[in-house]
Amino acid sequence: MNCPFCEIVAGRIPSEKVYDDDQVMAFRDISPQAPVHILVVPKDHADGIASMDGNDKSLIGDVMLAAAAIARSEGIAESGYRLVVNQGGDGGQTVGHLHVHLLGGRQMNWPPG
Amino acid sequence: MNCPFCEIVAGRIPSEKVYDDDQVMAFRDISPQAPVHILVVPKDHADGIASMDGNDKSLIGDVMLAAAAIARSEGIAESGYRLVVNQGGDGGQTVGHLHVHLLGGRQMNWPPG
Repeated sequence: MNCPFCEIVAGRIPSEKVYDDDQVMAFRDISPQAPVHILVVPKDHADGIASMDGNDKSLIGDVMLAAAAIARSEGIAESGYRLVVNQGGDGGQTVGHLHVHLLGGRQMNWPPG
Repeated sequence: MNCPFCEIVAGRIPSEKVYDDDQVMAFRDISPQAPVHILVVPKDHADGIASMDGNDKSLIGDVMLAAAAIARSEGIAESGYRLVVNQGGDGGQTVGHLHVHLLGGRQMNWPPG
């Protein structure tokens, strides 16, 4: 198993974990782009949003809602935040395990990269 | 009713529609930040991801999967793309109706704004 996020979920690679439930785990990005920068991932491996289908609908909702819940616990729900999913090369996806970036604690700019 | 995206969904404000099903509609951003820049919205009004809960899980999945399906129909599934959800002021949310930005057709940069 060579997926780094699967290794993090399994606890074989250390991470600064901020959230953990049956389906979803979240940990701080090691190269943060904002005062709050957290990665929210499904525990079961999925390559990315492009390879998911209707069977994954609930799981995708779980991941997005977990991101919103973490924003509340991080104290940035009121000030606002950005959720970002990168898919493939043009998207800038660097790890082939679906992850939602939660960024906040500063004004996010436009365009989004 | 003063929500511009509700007006677009209702057809009272024109848009360049690219996708339409029972739950979700999508149309081109009028100020595109990439060769492909589409907004994917739930037809029923929701202020944003922060105000959604477990009852909306399936709908959130629908919106995200619709974005991935539109990426396929736009021919950018292989080259890659970025999905962005802005929440509140720091997120840069400018319309208070949940929308997922689908951006592609060029290399997206980092940080995402």
